[in-house]
Amino acid sequence: MTQPRVLIIGAGLVGTSLGMALTRAGASVHFEDANPSHATVAAGLSNGRIGPLGPDDVDVVVVATPPASIVAVVREALQRFPAALVTDVGSIKAPITAAIAHPHYIGSHPMAGSQHTGPLTATASLFEGRAWIVSPGPDALPAHVELLHQLISSTGAVSVTMEPHRHDEAVAQVSHLPHLMSILTASHLREVPPAHLELAGQGLRDVTRIARSDTAMWRQIITTNSAAIRHELGEVAADLAHLIGILDDPDALEQFLAVGRRGALSLRGKHGNEPLALRFVTVRIPDEPRALARLFGDVGELGLNVEDFTLAHDTVAEVGYLSIAVEHDSAEQLRDALLEHGWDAWIKEDQV
Amino acid sequence: MTQPRVLIIGAGLVGTSLGMALTRAGASVHFEDANPSHATVAAGLSNGRIGPLGPDDVDVVVVATPPASIVAVVREALQRFPAALVTDVGSIKAPITAAIAHPHYIGSHPMAGSQHTGPLTATASLFEGRAWIVSPGPDALPAHVELLHQLISSTGAVSVTMEPHRHDEAVAQVSHLPHLMSILTASHLREVPPAHLELAGQGLRDVTRIARSDTAMWRQIITTNSAAIRHELGEVAADLAHLIGILDDPDALEQFLAVGRRGALSLRGKHGNEPLALRFVTVRIPDEPRALARLFGDVGELGLNVEDFTLAHDTVAEVGYLSIAVEHDSAEQLRDALLEHGWDAWIKEDQV
Repeated sequence: MTQPRVLIIGAGLVGTSLGMALTRAGASVHFEDANPSHATVAAGLSNGRIGPLGPDDVDVVVVATPPASIVAVVREALQRFPAALVTDVGSIKAPITAAIAHPHYIGSHPMAGSQHTGPLTATASLFEGRAWIVSPGPDALPAHVELLHQLISSTGAVSVTMEPHRHDEAVAQVSHLPHLMSILTASHLREVPPAHLELAGQGLRDVTRIARSDTAMWRQIITTNSAAIRHELGEVAADLAHLIGILDDPDALEQFLAVGRRGALSLRGKHGNEPLALRFVTVRIPDEPRALARLFGDVGELGLNVEDFTLAHDTVAEVGYLSIAVEHDSAEQLRDALLEHGWDAWIKEDQV
Repeated sequence: MTQPRVLIIGAGLVGTSLGMALTRAGASVHFEDANPSHATVAAGLSNGRIGPLGPDDVDVVVVATPPASIVAVVREALQRFPAALVTDVGSIKAPITAAIAHPHYIGSHPMAGSQHTGPLTATASLFEGRAWIVSPGPDALPAHVELLHQLISSTGAVSVTMEPHRHDEAVAQVSHLPHLMSILTASHLREVPPAHLELAGQGLRDVTRIARSDTAMWRQIITTNSAAIRHELGEVAADLAHLIGILDDPDALEQFLAVGRRGALSLRGKHGNEPLALRFVTVRIPDEPRALARLFGDVGELGLNVEDFTLAHDTVAEVGYLSIAVEHDSAEQLRDALLEHGWDAWIKEDQV
């Protein structure tokens, strides 16, 4: 097909980044925004255009406005451009799809963004390697679904089809619930005296980072998806009651901590629930002063997560070999770096 | 005073890092560990020693073993070294202080560590600029308190005195509760289909990062401090019930989100609850092709958080000036970098 003519309504981070990605892929892109400065900047950044459009000037409209205005903007776009496919990039799909119920509308949702807002933080690479969900309603035209998949692929994103309700349940689980857990943790700090806050470390900062996000946007997201979120929060409330009940039962507590640890580790790799296996790298330690300290200095430089290690002997003078356990995928990097530093090192296979 | 002779029992991350910091400051350091390899490596890393000790060979004993063994190891140290000050670096202070109740024991707690464990990740700079709480019981000797403060200062840490119960309440609030919120979020992922987990972004990873930590250590920390933690969890359960009740009330919801946002922002700076003010940097835009794109490229390179911006005109050709709002402390960096890139830029004072 020829390159589509795309109108992006809403020149925020996502809209502007999309314009940059699409013009890079050869599409012709036009911008509109309630704030003309933003449309101008987005067009300037992405080699796109601004200005009036006729009803036949557009093949695809992408609505990238704040959540609360999406339905109205999509409806207006369907009237202005009767032949065009209209999509949006909002975080919730089922209520919008039901409200619009038009064969030329297909909802979508790129799993990309940042805590920043506005076109100045836009980048053409925002979508590369990210999932972009397409949620066709029952009346969607197959040709439109195909067109949308092509548009999404051209940004470097991975197009995933998911029924609107199922999408909303998924984002309630992996995005909205974690957001509210961060909010609950951060809002509890109102009870904490400043002298105690001074003791806060990186862990608390990590857990509460997303709680800093724009409250006006999250108000819209959460109220629109409240049914799915209520279900998830109810399950967490049950878990919390269970946790309070086992605080003095070390075995039950550790079991629960382990369920959490497994859940957190399941996010690490690309392949579901398999935490990475360990491998040992063995190094010969020469009998010379400060050899161990020099070795650990070289290991430390690599910034690897050393999971465990064993020495062959108990005193520095007699040390023969040190085995260093690292994550499976780091073993070769460690061995090669040690060889480069002049150590005699090798991977001990199948030890763990 | 002359440099103290320090025995560190427990050569993990904290014990080994402490040895490195103390020998760097001129102290003489000795290591013991249930795993002789670890004591040897810690001594090798820190220029410390291993081997037998007489009852008068030690001025200070630092117990850096896992939480569950601290009381037994401290008691044994008090018997082996009747003249020495004995301290520990465990995360909870009141139960240990009550159980030991000895005038030569003073509990302490450095607010430093990492998700890594073992001496291989140790560093002499682990304590620099971190708070290190000293929690003397009612019978502590003033000379010992002074000695401990000096030892702590020599590591680069900031010595803070806090009564044991108050310390335990503070760490329940800023460390143990956030840890369990991370665990609750991560454990809930057991309910989430793998296809939904594929949609997870950085936010969920941030919230659940500390849930990956060692469950055996956290089992000990939480059960030891369960009373204070139960109190905090009860407050969170009440907040959660409130949140579930207001999911469909946009105004009440946004109010709650804002309480969370303020809490998260209160951790950003060093000065309590003041979120940083904004300042505008203004740049003259020359009338030449791609000037805006080049400017945004230069701004983007700096990695600053651009909070807002305004253009003086609506079309690229006529643009005269762009004002970029950044956090108060970033304005000078932005202006200087723009000047360096050849832009005409200045800070607009008192606009916000």
